[in-house]
Amino acid sequence: MRFCTFRVPDGRVRAGWLQDDTLVVDMHVVSQGQLPPTMMEFLKDAEANLKMARALADSLQGSLSGNMSSQASSDGHGTGQNGVYLLPEIQLLPPLPRPSSIRDFYAFEAHVKTARKNRGLEMVPQWYEFPAFYFSNHQAVLGPEAQVDIPPGCRWFDYELEIACVIGREGQNIPSEEAHAYIFAYTIMNDWSARDVQREEMKVGLGPAKGKDFATSLGPWLVTPDELERFGASRDEDTDSPLNVGEEVTSRFGKRYNLSMTASVNGMVLSRGNYRDVYFAFEEMIAHASRGVTLYPGDVIGSGTVGTGCILELGPTVHRWLEPGDVVELHIDGLGTLRNTVKG
Amino acid sequence: MRFCTFRVPDGRVRAGWLQDDTLVVDMHVVSQGQLPPTMMEFLKDAEANLKMARALADSLQGSLSGNMSSQASSDGHGTGQNGVYLLPEIQLLPPLPRPSSIRDFYAFEAHVKTARKNRGLEMVPQWYEFPAFYFSNHQAVLGPEAQVDIPPGCRWFDYELEIACVIGREGQNIPSEEAHAYIFAYTIMNDWSARDVQREEMKVGLGPAKGKDFATSLGPWLVTPDELERFGASRDEDTDSPLNVGEEVTSRFGKRYNLSMTASVNGMVLSRGNYRDVYFAFEEMIAHASRGVTLYPGDVIGSGTVGTGCILELGPTVHRWLEPGDVVELHIDGLGTLRNTVKG
Repeated sequence: MRFCTFRVPDGRVRAGWLQDDTLVVDMHVVSQGQLPPTMMEFLKDAEANLKMARALADSLQGSLSGNMSSQASSDGHGTGQNGVYLLPEIQLLPPLPRPSSIRDFYAFEAHVKTARKNRGLEMVPQWYEFPAFYFSNHQAVLGPEAQVDIPPGCRWFDYELEIACVIGREGQNIPSEEAHAYIFAYTIMNDWSARDVQREEMKVGLGPAKGKDFATSLGPWLVTPDELERFGASRDEDTDSPLNVGEEVTSRFGKRYNLSMTASVNGMVLSRGNYRDVYFAFEEMIAHASRGVTLYPGDVIGSGTVGTGCILELGPTVHRWLEPGDVVELHIDGLGTLRNTVKG
Repeated sequence: MRFCTFRVPDGRVRAGWLQDDTLVVDMHVVSQGQLPPTMMEFLKDAEANLKMARALADSLQGSLSGNMSSQASSDGHGTGQNGVYLLPEIQLLPPLPRPSSIRDFYAFEAHVKTARKNRGLEMVPQWYEFPAFYFSNHQAVLGPEAQVDIPPGCRWFDYELEIACVIGREGQNIPSEEAHAYIFAYTIMNDWSARDVQREEMKVGLGPAKGKDFATSLGPWLVTPDELERFGASRDEDTDSPLNVGEEVTSRFGKRYNLSMTASVNGMVLSRGNYRDVYFAFEEMIAHASRGVTLYPGDVIGSGTVGTGCILELGPTVHRWLEPGDVVELHIDGLGTLRNTVKG
């Protein structure tokens, strides 16, 4: 299923799912109040809520069968009747407007190698030993079609093409072999970056903060793993070669889906990558993040930038930094397109 | 006033204030439901709620006058009657159990100099240009008297003596000259640190994450600025020499209170510092944090470690790393004592 948060014509914010590619369902209304009005509340009992949502979606699909969904409005669907809207009637918001947290990893080797090379740095052996991350600002999330402000003092404004997952179950010390069950859904993430600000602050040694804290885009939907698996197969029966973690040797474990990822600026494709090239899979990121720490439903885990997935990596000969009016579109197979415009 | 969150004898979690050093007031009950049951809800309308709380505290003080508060229980106070408890009856929890975020700065020069020297690094000029910070895990907060777990894989376990403030008003691009009005209260913060884990992950360049994400202690109370000002004077009429920030020259601005800070392990004082030695005051940290980013009520801003305020800085000849059973007490003038025990 594909879950979303949206504004309906009367201005209220609702949550629900995309049905049949053309309809958006207000889950609180169609469930007669049994499903909650927000995705965050939904996630707090994700397993039971997902079961109910699936049953309702199936039943709604039955009642739609025989009708072309493009005719839904004239057949009594759309315009909010019974909680069902036509997609163009609503405004998509971030699918999870205020995640409980955002951890952003650094899990694609090509990006890290190039980003470090551009700063005159070699790869550090620690990068291969554990999936490093930093906490980003979970209170500055943008949705699809939103305008993004260039932050104060920034002249080198950049996008970052990432895939993210959303945690749907509370847990601590989660083994990577069990981590897949903690993933409620996947989505696209744009970790907007002020490269000049970031470059200065990272010299102090605490990692990125003001270089990244002004905006992170998520969306357009939260796509459940079963829905995503229609688009990509997992590789090597989910396992890979052994990984040397400190003094221990553990198995690599995770679903490295074959999902093409692209980013374009003003219609020109600049970045091309694939999730299957990730060095640490989400299952390994979850295992690391949850070591001695509780993960909560609504926590977001970003993959880090895929290889070639930002202007910093491409270099100034390929493309200038972003400017007001630029339209940035991130596309990932099965997850849709996340489009934002740089504010003028 | 000193606000707190606490568990009452029947197990419920309540919020309120400390009255007369010996009584704890359930603000939701004494206000007959006009004040909310949690500090987070209180902060969402902090100005109006604080006004009402002050009036109620004054009125309660009137009704207590003439009674020794040590006799409060026999006079009808304590044991939860009318929402008033004796301090020993309740269990203090973190005053803000789930802050909306935690930013931890790095604002004491002595700590940064020594910490970098210990890693063979010189001071970087950027440190003097802006107050650097990282986002820590706001979902792993401990309160006074809580036991702290040594995280998995850590052998070098350390405390960090910090002062923190809690934001009580939403704002973006807040000038340092106006920032004091956004501070609802101050409290003590212990940014527990796994030094061996931190050392490895900081080499990757994203700053600290697993080295710090397992626990942060806050407490014992949230102390409002007027309450704190009874204990310390601001220096130099709140201003200091001009500060060169990038290409601009701005005034230093902030209340650098004269507040002694100490940390002890098993009763032996190891760390001695003073908030007045902070290079960037909270007002300057707030100005930096809010540049292009909205701060929300419930956000926590940590100062960073005061000079000598951790074992890493003192070195192994002064004290070994923390071990199970160690009692760590942080004391700051006017803010009380935050005591935790390392779990055995």
